[in-house]
Amino acid sequence: MIQKIDHIGIAVSSLDEMIPVYEKAYGLTCEKIEEVPSQKVRTAFFDVKGVHLELLEPTSDDSPIAIFIAKKGEGIHHIAFATDDVLGQLAQASDADIKLIHKEPIDGANGKKVAFLHPKSTHGVLTEFCS
Amino acid sequence: MIQKIDHIGIAVSSLDEMIPVYEKAYGLTCEKIEEVPSQKVRTAFFDVKGVHLELLEPTSDDSPIAIFIAKKGEGIHHIAFATDDVLGQLAQASDADIKLIHKEPIDGANGKKVAFLHPKSTHGVLTEFCS
Repeated sequence: MIQKIDHIGIAVSSLDEMIPVYEKAYGLTCEKIEEVPSQKVRTAFFDVKGVHLELLEPTSDDSPIAIFIAKKGEGIHHIAFATDDVLGQLAQASDADIKLIHKEPIDGANGKKVAFLHPKSTHGVLTEFCS
Repeated sequence: MIQKIDHIGIAVSSLDEMIPVYEKAYGLTCEKIEEVPSQKVRTAFFDVKGVHLELLEPTSDDSPIAIFIAKKGEGIHHIAFATDDVLGQLAQASDADIKLIHKEPIDGANGKKVAFLHPKSTHGVLTEFCS
């Protein structure tokens, strides 16, 4: 079952440029910065009453985030739903004709298990389940 | 002060096509459908533990959502932060060199007062304050 919106992923070219924007313009506080080698990104987290903004900076030119920025520019990248059962949630989505990027969860930021749905089958919304 | 993430706006070509996706694939329930003439959209709301997904379907070819879809395709359109003080939040953003689309709040969905920041100054993230 989907428990809540865990985070919103935002593709940025530079954390050093964008963290001060979220701090000064919105009054939010950066909780932590973490590198996620499996995704080739450096991430910065802002907690907004239990839902996180996750700024994603590519650490290499072949990072999925670098490819996204090259195609579409900086901007909102994905929505992540927290669930107690990633595999069950993937099965439910698959039964509803959603194409899966990951058939099984992989390691994500914050020590979580994560899996993505293909945005072509969700009308352009890259969607993540995490637990 | 920003109180929480109020909603995530998602541009869709057809509510009739997309509502069943969110219901069947994710197990969410559509709360209500509302037309917002000022924005030339029909909206469908899903409550995910206090944060809403707001699907936005254009009702005319010159709707901002129709223009967004024509340029970028369907997908995540904006993030909205709930605040107790839209004007104060706009002033804080403006002081941090963020360009404002609305200098004063306008009428949005759900009887709220809303104002948008310009995505060019927020690195591609269309951002809304609402109260």
